[in-house]
Amino acid sequence: MNDLSALGRIRVVLSRPSHPGNIGAVARAMKTMGLAHLWLVSPAFFPDPVAEARASGAGDVLVGARVVDSLQEALSGTVFAAALTARRRDLSLARLDPRAAAAELMQWSRNTRGEVALVFGNEASGLSNEELGLCTLPVTIPANPDYPSLNLGAAVQLMCYELRLAAMGEGADALPSETLPEPATHDEVENFFEHLESSIVASGFLDPAKPRRLMPRLRRLFGRARLEKEEIAILRGILSSFDAGVKNYR
Amino acid sequence: MNDLSALGRIRVVLSRPSHPGNIGAVARAMKTMGLAHLWLVSPAFFPDPVAEARASGAGDVLVGARVVDSLQEALSGTVFAAALTARRRDLSLARLDPRAAAAELMQWSRNTRGEVALVFGNEASGLSNEELGLCTLPVTIPANPDYPSLNLGAAVQLMCYELRLAAMGEGADALPSETLPEPATHDEVENFFEHLESSIVASGFLDPAKPRRLMPRLRRLFGRARLEKEEIAILRGILSSFDAGVKNYR
Repeated sequence: MNDLSALGRIRVVLSRPSHPGNIGAVARAMKTMGLAHLWLVSPAFFPDPVAEARASGAGDVLVGARVVDSLQEALSGTVFAAALTARRRDLSLARLDPRAAAAELMQWSRNTRGEVALVFGNEASGLSNEELGLCTLPVTIPANPDYPSLNLGAAVQLMCYELRLAAMGEGADALPSETLPEPATHDEVENFFEHLESSIVASGFLDPAKPRRLMPRLRRLFGRARLEKEEIAILRGILSSFDAGVKNYR
Repeated sequence: MNDLSALGRIRVVLSRPSHPGNIGAVARAMKTMGLAHLWLVSPAFFPDPVAEARASGAGDVLVGARVVDSLQEALSGTVFAAALTARRRDLSLARLDPRAAAAELMQWSRNTRGEVALVFGNEASGLSNEELGLCTLPVTIPANPDYPSLNLGAAVQLMCYELRLAAMGEGADALPSETLPEPATHDEVENFFEHLESSIVASGFLDPAKPRRLMPRLRRLFGRARLEKEEIAILRGILSSFDAGVKNYR
């Protein structure tokens, strides 16, 4: 299946980029592969003449870029978000390589007609654990373990290349062709987590003063499941039924 | 076959690069993928502080770079040379994409134990016909036909990534295997579902007389997540905290 139009439903999100040159390089990398939607979360410098110079003929991607204050905002309305991370983290054991991630992003984009996101962290510090928690799945580029430090523009180039190949039909035959049930949006999932957290605080299971790693663990669990819209409704219905018992008891 | 040592027999050759920043970006891109041998044919500026800055932690690749006067010299001793070219030319009828080119380069490197080369032309003018003629086969990166203008560093990153994947013996399974958390056993999962069912019956959410498709739906949701042993413990702890509220209320 050749569906380059699906590339138009992909957001590239840069969280807190420090160097305007990298923003320009990212715009150029995106456009060479047919992507257009750039979202910038609290960029250190933007707009900036250095970004424009490095974007070369891709200035239109910069002009169309959306600047927002939080990753939450950048992911609002998306149905799937892949997070690029070089580091090993205890909580991110399921982890895709770029090819598998591109196949999955394209599958979600095609089957749901919804927007999907590819999220990159700050050049020096990467994505925070909190930011990672907002994304569906981590992606790691296989790299030299002694020097895994890809430049931001280069990492975006590589991911966009894999997305273009996936959109061109590479590997598409291997994917299930059935229509997926309607996925929950980012906002619906976040509202569910808020509800879950407040319910288990009310029940006494979670002590807000000593949160341990409880919510991140639950996020990881439900993240793997990729919740559907109707499932969110069921889970919140269950929570409400528990809330009623807990509230009247206390 | 996993043979990362073959990456040590690959030369990256830049012919007449104009911008020292690009030379630095190329060094960095190479090192992230485990390549080390950079050859520069008549660079406009080298060595150069801009190249060093952009190389970041890959200064060793710049220090080891060989500077020569002609592509002939840079290819001396190689057994195979792939030439990157964006443009269509009458003379380049057979043309590989990056993945096929990487497979072929690795095959030559493995089977002959000889050195192979990946050749990139000048940023603005690309490779001349004469230079192309010195190479074994042209390679074209699939790109947006309206804007196929990849940055030199980005193109090198992408080719070196494909070479690393080819050396690792192919994509998806090739990420370093991490220890997976201990999965829940079948019985633990079944006990969790029993607990869940009795809790939502007690809370009034599930009417045993009219079960609808509720438990099958919840089984499907948690089945997709492939629960871990510790997660079962957390989920049952949460259910118990709700049970206490519900029980005392009723």
